[in-house]
Amino acid sequence: MIKPRTPPGVMELLPRDQIAFQRMLDTIRRNYERFGFLPVETPVFELSEVLLTKSGGETERQVYFAQSTGALEKGNDGLPELALRFDLTVPLARYVAEHEHELAFPFRRYQIQRVYRGERAQRGRFREFYQCDIDVVGKDALSIRFDAEILAVIHAVFSELGIGDFTIQLNNRKLMRGFFEGLGIADGSRQMDVLREVDKLDKRGADLVRDTLTGEGFGLSAETVGRILDFVAVRSIGHQDALAQLQRLGQGSDTFNQGIAELREVLELVHALGVPESDYCLNLSIARGLDYYTGTVYETQLDGYQQIGSICSGGRYDDLASHYSKSKLPGVGISIGLTRLFWQLREAGLIAGADESSVQAMVALMEDNQLTESLDIARKLRAGGINTEVQMEPKKLGKQFQYASRAGIRFVVLAGEDELKRGVVTVKDLAREQQFETTRDQLASTLRVELEQTRALAGR
Amino acid sequence: MIKPRTPPGVMELLPRDQIAFQRMLDTIRRNYERFGFLPVETPVFELSEVLLTKSGGETERQVYFAQSTGALEKGNDGLPELALRFDLTVPLARYVAEHEHELAFPFRRYQIQRVYRGERAQRGRFREFYQCDIDVVGKDALSIRFDAEILAVIHAVFSELGIGDFTIQLNNRKLMRGFFEGLGIADGSRQMDVLREVDKLDKRGADLVRDTLTGEGFGLSAETVGRILDFVAVRSIGHQDALAQLQRLGQGSDTFNQGIAELREVLELVHALGVPESDYCLNLSIARGLDYYTGTVYETQLDGYQQIGSICSGGRYDDLASHYSKSKLPGVGISIGLTRLFWQLREAGLIAGADESSVQAMVALMEDNQLTESLDIARKLRAGGINTEVQMEPKKLGKQFQYASRAGIRFVVLAGEDELKRGVVTVKDLAREQQFETTRDQLASTLRVELEQTRALAGR
Repeated sequence: MIKPRTPPGVMELLPRDQIAFQRMLDTIRRNYERFGFLPVETPVFELSEVLLTKSGGETERQVYFAQSTGALEKGNDGLPELALRFDLTVPLARYVAEHEHELAFPFRRYQIQRVYRGERAQRGRFREFYQCDIDVVGKDALSIRFDAEILAVIHAVFSELGIGDFTIQLNNRKLMRGFFEGLGIADGSRQMDVLREVDKLDKRGADLVRDTLTGEGFGLSAETVGRILDFVAVRSIGHQDALAQLQRLGQGSDTFNQGIAELREVLELVHALGVPESDYCLNLSIARGLDYYTGTVYETQLDGYQQIGSICSGGRYDDLASHYSKSKLPGVGISIGLTRLFWQLREAGLIAGADESSVQAMVALMEDNQLTESLDIARKLRAGGINTEVQMEPKKLGKQFQYASRAGIRFVVLAGEDELKRGVVTVKDLAREQQFETTRDQLASTLRVELEQTRALAGR
Repeated sequence: MIKPRTPPGVMELLPRDQIAFQRMLDTIRRNYERFGFLPVETPVFELSEVLLTKSGGETERQVYFAQSTGALEKGNDGLPELALRFDLTVPLARYVAEHEHELAFPFRRYQIQRVYRGERAQRGRFREFYQCDIDVVGKDALSIRFDAEILAVIHAVFSELGIGDFTIQLNNRKLMRGFFEGLGIADGSRQMDVLREVDKLDKRGADLVRDTLTGEGFGLSAETVGRILDFVAVRSIGHQDALAQLQRLGQGSDTFNQGIAELREVLELVHALGVPESDYCLNLSIARGLDYYTGTVYETQLDGYQQIGSICSGGRYDDLASHYSKSKLPGVGISIGLTRLFWQLREAGLIAGADESSVQAMVALMEDNQLTESLDIARKLRAGGINTEVQMEPKKLGKQFQYASRAGIRFVVLAGEDELKRGVVTVKDLAREQQFETTRDQLASTLRVELEQTRALAGR
């Protein structure tokens, strides 16, 4: 006998949690599609040679390789032929470069699939997790306007997910770069080192950070450090304030000014797209770790749950597929790491398993000889769009109710001898704790109306 | 520069094909949920020790193993720790055994995920492919009634997929076993050998098959072979005929009689579930390769496309998880291999990419200064449930129409200066080749009605 268990670092859910998770995936997909993004799916494995274009480094160490039994027996000197994707960006780059002449640009795609990283096993760290990505990829150029559209998509997704108030925070790498260059810190990796120190403000306090930056390693003047701390402290409250804060930054190098102009245009369009001004702001401390981004950068915070960190991040990049194509393919995109987010929301008590099952009705069975009647009722319910389970064998009615209640099935439909004679069915609504009678033919439409009403009341 | 390409043996689709594929997945899932099946997803990899309980054999040779860079460097003597799932049945067995005390039985689950097999590269063979499975798993026992429900689900799925007429073919392993035992062929593997010969009837003709079975290897009498060929030739046309054919088989051993009784009950319930009698039949030649099945077995044929083979198969098994649990867990289930099916349907010219995109409307942009108006129109469309793309930069109108037409976007919404003054928008319906005006506020509901009408006309 082998002990049934999953490998460490994966998230596997019981059905009610899976239903809740699936609803989140569906909401994300629905909103991505609502904004005109097209679906793409790529294979879980890519050729190692294609996937691992950037040599070495942290990322490569975390890659999973795949080998069939045959390949394993043969052995090999170099890397195995296949590797599992560790994000959806590299597969997108490969896809766009491979199909460049068959795609229309700007190419809006969404991709919702699992990715794999050989992380050290640790609570809340996953080796397999969902990413839900959108990107708009242009050929040669891509209007800054898409940076605003991406923000509107994030807003639509998290509004409909209904996991609480959130704020989409904006910054621009050109603005940051211009700012640091103006201070004489021209080297990109040095800028990142400084930002990494600044990032410790909350943990270490302003004094310690100031000491470090003016100390030996960095050797910045007190005045420079003061300007940096002022800069990264910039936060806006509301639309007009965001524009005013940008104004207050004044003028700088071309890069600096371009960053300001881009942020202003994104803010104006986000406003025109109807995103409420309480839900976005400037946050000039946001850098995004990767050197990858070159313009707009986004992070999204759940208000009041800063410990969760950013729940949706991304930005603008200059060239998606330089390893695969000579074409210049600039783009902008974001990613939601849903497995981790789901886990965190559950830890924070913000979500539980689905209140209501995907099964909406259960047809109870009291007497064995009523089965064909039950099946007929179920057939009508299903034809009317109601997800329906039939009790295939008679059990005590109490047990059947208990089952439905535990499973989160809202409606229990009964057709005992009395009801059959009178040509009706009895419906117990476990959510409203009500009971009513209706005819078999009107049953499905009646339940549909009830479900619609609940949905409307919940604002879904 | 690295040539962007996928590994051999995977199916990657361009967006319009992906939309068509996604619609099929959605239809399958919707019908699985309609019948009260609950969603389960399992990790792509399982512990090798857990996954590969059956030692050796064809299946194990085709397994992919996964190793992180660290594990690869360390090397190992035995098998790598992780292996990719090669079907959804073994993960289901592990899942049910692992969560036995948290699940309610009978447990109805659906699972739609990709599986992996190290097949030899060959046209139409895939190393990564979708399986769309449903199973009902009981504890200790499971009513034969579920065998009928499974058939009703298959019927609902393929009716709604709309890929052509189909027939769900039924047999029962008990009936077969009883029949062969009655002929003195008691050994299961010998029965399979005989059936494998019989399977060549179409290719080799009755005479050659008869020669083989009466020849040295098998040594069956001419009379026995005659009875076998008569038995496997049984096909029914319509419900009454199916029952009559069963009647005509007469009586035999207990096993034989039980097989007949089970088939009869399944047929009666399928009828009660409203499945049209033209869509199911008896086919006593169906065995399903695996020794796994013990009762009802199903295969589904697309009428007129026998070369495609069975598009949905499965059956009843006695014990799902004997490797993982002492509990007896009998079940019944089926699987649709959607990747292969999609590929075959495309090869046979039965499906093309989606006629209509998932994007339903495009807001055109003629003048740069009308962008905020466009964004407002798009916002209203999206709020009204219409998937909408906005042209973010003005282009020649002809180009914008060409793009929408090629992309399969049905409605192009125009709001030029004239329309803006009059507070209306012009809609070009590319499907009906019509044009009409409406107000901005009524736009979404107007398009919704149009889409509903089309859907109703198409019977979807």
